[in-house]
Amino acid sequence: MNSFGELFRVTTFGESHGPAMGAVIDGCPAGVPLTKAFVQRALDRRRPGQSAVTTARQEADQVELLSGVYEDKTLGTPIAAIVRNTDARSQDYAKLAKEDRPGHADRVWRERFHHRDPRGGGRTSGRETLCRVIGGAVADALLANETPKLNVVAWVSQVGPFVAPLPAAGLTRAQVDAHPTRCPDVALAAEIEARILEAKAAGDSLGGAITVRIEGAPLGLGEPVFGKLKSRLADAFAGVGAVTGVVWGPADLEHRLRLPGTQFHATNADGTPSDVYGGIQGGLANGEPVLARVLFKPPATLTDHAKAGRHDPCILPRAVPVIEAMASMVFADLLLSFLARPHRA
Amino acid sequence: MNSFGELFRVTTFGESHGPAMGAVIDGCPAGVPLTKAFVQRALDRRRPGQSAVTTARQEADQVELLSGVYEDKTLGTPIAAIVRNTDARSQDYAKLAKEDRPGHADRVWRERFHHRDPRGGGRTSGRETLCRVIGGAVADALLANETPKLNVVAWVSQVGPFVAPLPAAGLTRAQVDAHPTRCPDVALAAEIEARILEAKAAGDSLGGAITVRIEGAPLGLGEPVFGKLKSRLADAFAGVGAVTGVVWGPADLEHRLRLPGTQFHATNADGTPSDVYGGIQGGLANGEPVLARVLFKPPATLTDHAKAGRHDPCILPRAVPVIEAMASMVFADLLLSFLARPHRA
Amino acid sequence: MNSFGELFRVTTFGESHGPAMGAVIDGCPAGVPLTKAFVQRALDRRRPGQSAVTTARQEADQVELLSGVYEDKTLGTPIAAIVRNTDARSQDYAKLAKEDRPGHADRVWRERFHHRDPRGGGRTSGRETLCRVIGGAVADALLANETPKLNVVAWVSQVGPFVAPLPAAGLTRAQVDAHPTRCPDVALAAEIEARILEAKAAGDSLGGAITVRIEGAPLGLGEPVFGKLKSRLADAFAGVGAVTGVVWGPADLEHRLRLPGTQFHATNADGTPSDVYGGIQGGLANGEPVLARVLFKPPATLTDHAKAGRHDPCILPRAVPVIEAMASMVFADLLLSFLARPHRA
Amino acid sequence: MNSFGELFRVTTFGESHGPAMGAVIDGCPAGVPLTKAFVQRALDRRRPGQSAVTTARQEADQVELLSGVYEDKTLGTPIAAIVRNTDARSQDYAKLAKEDRPGHADRVWRERFHHRDPRGGGRTSGRETLCRVIGGAVADALLANETPKLNVVAWVSQVGPFVAPLPAAGLTRAQVDAHPTRCPDVALAAEIEARILEAKAAGDSLGGAITVRIEGAPLGLGEPVFGKLKSRLADAFAGVGAVTGVVWGPADLEHRLRLPGTQFHATNADGTPSDVYGGIQGGLANGEPVLARVLFKPPATLTDHAKAGRHDPCILPRAVPVIEAMASMVFADLLLSFLARPHRA
Repeated sequence: MNSFGELFRVTTFGESHGPAMGAVIDGCPAGVPLTKAFVQRALDRRRPGQSAVTTARQEADQVELLSGVYEDKTLGTPIAAIVRNTDARSQDYAKLAKEDRPGHADRVWRERFHHRDPRGGGRTSGRETLCRVIGGAVADALLANETPKLNVVAWVSQVGPFVAPLPAAGLTRAQVDAHPTRCPDVALAAEIEARILEAKAAGDSLGGAITVRIEGAPLGLGEPVFGKLKSRLADAFAGVGAVTGVVWGPADLEHRLRLPGTQFHATNADGTPSDVYGGIQGGLANGEPVLARVLFKPPATLTDHAKAGRHDPCILPRAVPVIEAMASMVFADLLLSFLARPHRA
Repeated sequence: MNSFGELFRVTTFGESHGPAMGAVIDGCPAGVPLTKAFVQRALDRRRPGQSAVTTARQEADQVELLSGVYEDKTLGTPIAAIVRNTDARSQDYAKLAKEDRPGHADRVWRERFHHRDPRGGGRTSGRETLCRVIGGAVADALLANETPKLNVVAWVSQVGPFVAPLPAAGLTRAQVDAHPTRCPDVALAAEIEARILEAKAAGDSLGGAITVRIEGAPLGLGEPVFGKLKSRLADAFAGVGAVTGVVWGPADLEHRLRLPGTQFHATNADGTPSDVYGGIQGGLANGEPVLARVLFKPPATLTDHAKAGRHDPCILPRAVPVIEAMASMVFADLLLSFLARPHRA
Repeated sequence: MNSFGELFRVTTFGESHGPAMGAVIDGCPAGVPLTKAFVQRALDRRRPGQSAVTTARQEADQVELLSGVYEDKTLGTPIAAIVRNTDARSQDYAKLAKEDRPGHADRVWRERFHHRDPRGGGRTSGRETLCRVIGGAVADALLANETPKLNVVAWVSQVGPFVAPLPAAGLTRAQVDAHPTRCPDVALAAEIEARILEAKAAGDSLGGAITVRIEGAPLGLGEPVFGKLKSRLADAFAGVGAVTGVVWGPADLEHRLRLPGTQFHATNADGTPSDVYGGIQGGLANGEPVLARVLFKPPATLTDHAKAGRHDPCILPRAVPVIEAMASMVFADLLLSFLARPHRA
Repeated sequence: MNSFGELFRVTTFGESHGPAMGAVIDGCPAGVPLTKAFVQRALDRRRPGQSAVTTARQEADQVELLSGVYEDKTLGTPIAAIVRNTDARSQDYAKLAKEDRPGHADRVWRERFHHRDPRGGGRTSGRETLCRVIGGAVADALLANETPKLNVVAWVSQVGPFVAPLPAAGLTRAQVDAHPTRCPDVALAAEIEARILEAKAAGDSLGGAITVRIEGAPLGLGEPVFGKLKSRLADAFAGVGAVTGVVWGPADLEHRLRLPGTQFHATNADGTPSDVYGGIQGGLANGEPVLARVLFKPPATLTDHAKAGRHDPCILPRAVPVIEAMASMVFADLLLSFLARPHRA
């Protein structure tokens, strides 16, 4: 189905070439400060055409709030927001209407729904992620109001063979956005940018990884059996188009898995657990930063170079706000569950 | 909460040292052949004390079916099954009652629920997975009846530094079970067994990976936006205790992510897509085998060697039926969703 | 929350004086014929200002389909539809902003959400039911495609002291709509109309009952324990603003409850069960027409007669399509559940 | 399905003549005082053979708590409780195996599930309600801990033609239980008892009504659109076997619906709203006692008088704790939802 979350529930809709895309956010409490400008800024971080490393397609993606907000505060009623599709360019896709695009889910979709929307991917388009960004913006507003210490930040930590070191604690989204690649390591960012432009020119593409870190999660947030914090985030991230893996804890996990437990579980000097838990134990936030690495395939490339300009050679920079949105929606939902349980000993 | 799935919904209960553990499976259609012996065999594959490579704890784990089955067929009503806890040995844990065990979620659990069950881990115990195996057995019975071509098989594909090659198509659970390590590569299995026994003797532990392959999934099974097949499985696997990552597609994915898209997406000789999709495109089963690698941390070890014998030095062999159970529950649930949608063009 | 249904799930949004109201329908299969004109006709049956017996407020309530439909067929993706609020007249409500309106939920809402939308009732307004009518129209389209024999029809069966007899089988919505009161009994309809106009002139109001009959329900549709067909419909109808009771079976049920079981359960001449079951046994449709009587309070009246013209003196005629919409959504949802369960003996 | 509630979720299982029946309660917070004796007392109020006015069948219905409780407090984990079926007497039902029982759902059930459990009604048996009583007992324990002022009490307010007046505020369950008919009006209770015994002797049966009153509900509890308090309770009560109607507000509602709004809505002398709202406005508890009348059909009677002794001539006295259980589960669930929403203005 097209809903995400239980108590903070985001329902998305819209085909990439239909009249509009949008989201309905149900369960956001009343009284949370929320403006159209705040949601728009979130969308601007995702939209195509931001910089040379993204697709050249220009989509304004102007949001309209239809309900749930009055005088810049949430009403406690469902928040509906839409974005009109303006750069439809359906003629670009008309030629593809009859044939399944390589590397796309066209054939599978047709089997499932007994038709294929010839207007370009329908709901499977990466454009669908703008709905998630809307949901994430509302989640961010809620979290800022209820758990101001929470800091959900993602960044590009790998592009092709280039792997960035873990940045210091307290990294902000503004710091990440300071470079078009959204890799906060200054030296590496320049190298990555060059490599993406090179791939773009060659009609090639690049994959890699985004690392997301959530600092300040309430101790004990999550569920202990099904719906563990680990599971909820894995579900959230694996649902983003090109994601091909979700790994917890240290960046060199694949290497460390080769070591025996006595070495793997070595505690830090101060006796605290090392970061092998990725901030989660028994399904619950353990007070350490929650740390996950999300692996992305390189986009399937088109042999027709003329079209290449309209697709991202590397989706990682634009996927950063999408991964953050997914994380924020998970935390908003779990936070409301957390509040629903009176704690009596 | 403690339920898994929407239409095929498994609710589990029981603390590891309370009177009983069990599961209620709601949504299984009527008329599916199901016997107590079938469920018992599934539990036997998970139970402790199976072989020298597992914990020496002996737990009979005898299942009792309380409802939902009559004359060896499901009634369409909820199937409740329980296992009494017999090897409680709570005195072993009495000493631990006052202190949080290192490497366990005790501290976090206590913060969340304002108490800690001193009888040994409560719901966070690995023993909770027997409830999942019950759910998986019923899912298997349903799938065997409705989609007989579906083949859900998992195996130990890595222990510490030892990595097994991908086995040929059509591997069966019986073939996997033929070796106590559940590594189907005969040569490597012996090496892995020796290594686990060595770790056991040394009070050490080992992690690694289980690979799960689902052959014969109905084309188009899954959901395209939220609840993608990829997401559902990631959620399912990440919810198993020591899992620290879920990765799709080829075993050397981390290596292949370093390559540009043109090399990453190279098709097979016959023009079919290569296995980079792990059998899933756009969230839906694409007709190829679904292939995921589930990464496991080594268990946290106890410095007290006297206790070590009661814990698994390497949980991978016993986790194989748990991973299969999670996969089967996901497929059973998605299959019922699939049937709920009449396909009209 | 603001969603209704499980597999056919309708999420509604919008405050009565915000920018727009609407609904997202998730779970409608692909390939169902659906046009904007079809949804508009459904809304036209509910809109204010249809006739002398309703409020004089004129609201065009023009629907726009934002997603989920392409070339007049559903895509299998979420269907989003909105109606802009044009007749806001918020100045009418400005005077009321500071005081709780008698007979309204203003005070309770303010306690719950710690604020009250001063623009006129927000989500508690009867205007919210237009979202339900959108959901019902999509449900009707699905049902027409999958179970063409199903006939969901409601009518005004009581206004104040006037009670209409049960109409013959096969009554259509067009026959009901032929009279502005939506009472299909021609003689009584005239009397009822006169009485409503009288109440309107006097600044008074009238309650009564709507009877809904669903013919042609698939035998066995429903659930046997929780979510019985009876429960689902009771939940659906009781959720409509002024409803104060839901009663199954014959119109004189209160009288028949005074009789002993031998007289109450008398079978019909042909040995079939009498209509005391209201078409439902054990929570499942039993093949007889499903028959429910929905009781409506008279609207709370305003002492200010000048305003009275902007409110319905008797909401029953306009509530008929709302009750039908609720019934259709329930049947659409249960139908998809029904299909999700393979029937094997 | 077989679950009830969202945050406080009760899943029931068991056929009336299978090995056991039971319930799993998920979502009850930790630290709530709960004993086996407390649950047993609740079951004792429902069990057959309590008095001359009920069935002569004797079923001990001894409960066993399998999980979720430790040292008489809830753990925050799922609470599983079972009751073994001891008085199976399946031979009584063997004769009926081949034929559908008149007045039962046998035929419909067989169509739905393609089989019929010949052991006596399976899940459609009234015996299933013991699972609801278990869920209600846990809900009562939670409510007593969190909202000690809440008072959920039901009583027999009508049997056949005998209608009891509304008892004074503060009525307790003990006061209701003081008479075997559970009619708290002393004079009428004797008359009702005589009438039930008369029907029993004659192989006849009687229906009527149970009134349930919930005092002390938190102001604003409920949901404003779907899942209104009114809807939730209607769903809950309509799901009990023989229920044929749910009506809000005053007992003479059918009469008052004949009156115009100015008379219907007359306020009380002190200016407070009269009880026409049944304690609910806009879907939310309005601070007044919530008051509903639940109508029950007379049980379908058996022509075989020899069997008649094993069935209740009037199920109303034993249905009182079932209606209370349903109400308590709804309030427990809504209370947790209520807590999940931080209230900021």
